[in-house]
Amino acid sequence: MKTYLDCLPCFLDQALRAARMATNDQIKIKAVLDAVSMMLPTISLESTPPETGRLIYQKVHEITKNQDPYREVKDRSTREALSLYPHMKSLVEKSDDGLLMAIRMAIAGNVIDFGPNRAFDMKEEIETTRSKAFAVCDYEQFKTALAQSGRILYIGDNAGECVFDRVLLETMNKPATYVVREKPVINDATLEDAQQAGINSAVELMSSGTDAPGTLLETCSDRFIRRYHEAELIISKGQGNYEALSNQHQNIFFLLKAKCPVIAEHMGLPVGSIILRAANAPL
Amino acid sequence: MKTYLDCLPCFLDQALRAARMATNDQIKIKAVLDAVSMMLPTISLESTPPETGRLIYQKVHEITKNQDPYREVKDRSTREALSLYPHMKSLVEKSDDGLLMAIRMAIAGNVIDFGPNRAFDMKEEIETTRSKAFAVCDYEQFKTALAQSGRILYIGDNAGECVFDRVLLETMNKPATYVVREKPVINDATLEDAQQAGINSAVELMSSGTDAPGTLLETCSDRFIRRYHEAELIISKGQGNYEALSNQHQNIFFLLKAKCPVIAEHMGLPVGSIILRAANAPL
Repeated sequence: MKTYLDCLPCFLDQALRAARMATNDQIKIKAVLDAVSMMLPTISLESTPPETGRLIYQKVHEITKNQDPYREVKDRSTREALSLYPHMKSLVEKSDDGLLMAIRMAIAGNVIDFGPNRAFDMKEEIETTRSKAFAVCDYEQFKTALAQSGRILYIGDNAGECVFDRVLLETMNKPATYVVREKPVINDATLEDAQQAGINSAVELMSSGTDAPGTLLETCSDRFIRRYHEAELIISKGQGNYEALSNQHQNIFFLLKAKCPVIAEHMGLPVGSIILRAANAPL
Repeated sequence: MKTYLDCLPCFLDQALRAARMATNDQIKIKAVLDAVSMMLPTISLESTPPETGRLIYQKVHEITKNQDPYREVKDRSTREALSLYPHMKSLVEKSDDGLLMAIRMAIAGNVIDFGPNRAFDMKEEIETTRSKAFAVCDYEQFKTALAQSGRILYIGDNAGECVFDRVLLETMNKPATYVVREKPVINDATLEDAQQAGINSAVELMSSGTDAPGTLLETCSDRFIRRYHEAELIISKGQGNYEALSNQHQNIFFLLKAKCPVIAEHMGLPVGSIILRAANAPL
């Protein structure tokens, strides 16, 4: 997905919030805003938003000297998500279609996002998403792909959300590799977050190698790229991964909640839509 | 009021919306965003927001070659407000305290604001504001000032809102001068808008001389400045005028709805507060 003009003020807004998360020093926060303001005119509208997001959050880390501003927020998200894990497992067990309910839970977890400016309530999100109508639901195609695939490549998104992904991973009960970011960026999940979420027994954990808030292939490791091209089934979670991979033609299924108005419009769907979309299905 | 860091992304967002209102040419809209992005690091945080707003909207007009992007929006606002005028007059007439109800109507009209990004419904706003509790209400002080003053200097804010101000002007029934901006900026009222609102019989109309979205004294005409300093009672409508005049010690009463989180915080009040505040009263 390309960058839209609406993304530009949003980048500046994200920089402000990330800088405030990283430091209380008003001079440094202003320096971040100045640096990002100067950067905005250089952004190609042909680039994907995570490409720019990567540069912006690098700038925040560099100026504030804080490499992981969201560390505490991420730990808190994981703790809260873990407290909801038994409830989610019970919903899946009691459901007539446990797989679909687990997909719903994975999407509910996608509400945890500190990039754009919005508040959320995980518990409420579970209650809403367990019965909400899908805006796109390529579920039959997904079930077929799942039955025919060996190992699943599951690309995670945010810390805390990993617990929700764990519910889906356990329900699918297939060999899987769970992919996280190499370095902290916003509240995106890294190895540490996936481990804290309890994804460590049957599932292989790996880093994609990127420090972008999305699976920006040109910044990923060779090892990940090989696995990506070999994968028979890829699950891509969240907006950042969608933005980075939406023009790819792999066997990808995008699972997300369209929280951002620009992404929703790109997909031709209302804001707040819940989505299970096959990459090779028509938009 | 000074500029807060939160104002910077908001300026860029306002530039985007104003540019889109001014033209469909995506190249020009991008040029506006680039120019405003480059301008942001040069903004002194000691300046008031309307000082910067002025430069930003000048840039929008210059690049898009559209001197009045909100012309149609302003006409529509005035037409809608005029359709609600009889209802407002009837509310004032039926009220036990007609003056206070007219003040409420003037504040309700302050919801018409196309600067920051929000939707509004004039009719609904009248219904809410007619009985909402004031966050600040220096009403006794206002009544005393009103009784003791000769001519009132009433500084208007937005097109459409003039009709709501007209209700208050008619209820006060005192000699008054209604002040508008010299040139179009956002949807702020100019002479044309005040005339369309029907403020033209008993009330003197004048321009402050400014092209800023607020009464930025250093950009006002000598004629206005004289009247400003002579005035026994000044009514200042809306956020832009508050931002420009909040550090002044004239006989000003600020009438506004605090829609912007930064202004609300500056006043120590919740967003959405309705306010009648004497400038010389403690915050």
